[in-house]
Amino acid sequence: MTSSTLRLYELCGADPARRFSPYTWRVRMALAAKGLVPETIPWRFTQKDVLAPFNADKVPLLVHGERAVKESWAIAEYLEDSFPDRPSLFGGTPGKELARFVNAWADAVVVPGMARMIMADIVKLLDPEDAAYFRASREARFGATLEQLAADRDAAVKGFRQTLHPMRMVVRSQPFLAGAAPMQADAIVFGCFQWARCTSPFRLLAADDPVEAWRQRMLDLHGGLARGVPAFD
Amino acid sequence: MTSSTLRLYELCGADPARRFSPYTWRVRMALAAKGLVPETIPWRFTQKDVLAPFNADKVPLLVHGERAVKESWAIAEYLEDSFPDRPSLFGGTPGKELARFVNAWADAVVVPGMARMIMADIVKLLDPEDAAYFRASREARFGATLEQLAADRDAAVKGFRQTLHPMRMVVRSQPFLAGAAPMQADAIVFGCFQWARCTSPFRLLAADDPVEAWRQRMLDLHGGLARGVPAFD
Repeated sequence: MTSSTLRLYELCGADPARRFSPYTWRVRMALAAKGLVPETIPWRFTQKDVLAPFNADKVPLLVHGERAVKESWAIAEYLEDSFPDRPSLFGGTPGKELARFVNAWADAVVVPGMARMIMADIVKLLDPEDAAYFRASREARFGATLEQLAADRDAAVKGFRQTLHPMRMVVRSQPFLAGAAPMQADAIVFGCFQWARCTSPFRLLAADDPVEAWRQRMLDLHGGLARGVPAFD
Repeated sequence: MTSSTLRLYELCGADPARRFSPYTWRVRMALAAKGLVPETIPWRFTQKDVLAPFNADKVPLLVHGERAVKESWAIAEYLEDSFPDRPSLFGGTPGKELARFVNAWADAVVVPGMARMIMADIVKLLDPEDAAYFRASREARFGATLEQLAADRDAAVKGFRQTLHPMRMVVRSQPFLAGAAPMQADAIVFGCFQWARCTSPFRLLAADDPVEAWRQRMLDLHGGLARGVPAFD
């Protein structure tokens, strides 16, 4: 198995170079941590037919030879098991199990907290068919228009920043959630921030927030992998 | 160093047998996981003079021979380092670092979420001097009387249960936060629930909540250590 056989389907905007899925970024960072360079394939929300042969309907989707793996957590587990001689994403069992908790916290707290503030910006970056799909599905899920959700974001961001406090308590005294060096737990939360960075000019973090300093450290990883893509800021 | 040299100061109510501090319970569970049996010493909020010789003003305080260690996280680290041949509390570096995040989440989300609902019950269990201290300090911190804070708890508990969702997402599919076996991350969150169980008849969790099933598993640990103390339910 060589890295040349890895294909990663990634959500993109009207510009195929704008890859913004928080979940796909978790995988990009996992691959980079393993020293693997995938072939990345841009994909749009409404291109369900492209993924159907893999029994998938959304990204990230990793195709490794004959094997298709869905969902960012499952892909990280797959990479950990398939490339055991590369740097570990989890650092053993307790580290992996507690990374699950970080993953659940990111999904339950960080993603929805950000979503309401940035979705009105995301929709502007999508091609027309995707924009219509995104607007209809998200407005149904949140029960308001994207613009209504974003309207109070200058106030809402204060509450959002408070929800980050558990993370802030950790990264104010050590470089990464996983300690001196980053692991997948860091990539999981970072994926959320990279999603926002790729789609919205809205400032989610105060300049003096330890979480912002952590975000900058994450942007520096792997030769600036995440910093060097089309994004705001 | 033998376990007979370990003394743990524990917060108690008017009844010295009612030991209810969430932070002290983290230490009790850590000691039990290490197979250590401390001498436990009941202590009240207002007995500052008892702890002063140790340069401490609150519990948990662990005294091990000549060494006094304060604060539940620092005590767990101390036990891990001092008893390396006993079962690990963290399972290595990433597991320990991510347990810090669980600790921060418990302190920032679970403790304050519970506190407002149970403090009106806690105050009833304290001796008069402690009750006056507790009421004055907590009412100043929360900006309301303990009874005002508890008045809407039948509604507030719904929001509290939602904040547990990241944990629920994990323990609905595995026995403990740390995986198949519990580690200190589990004890950290459990300490909060044991605090409530020892002080309040108010039901924080629905009977069918996976977090409730996890709590029951935690109560079973170490021969039912936490189950067998004066408590409600």
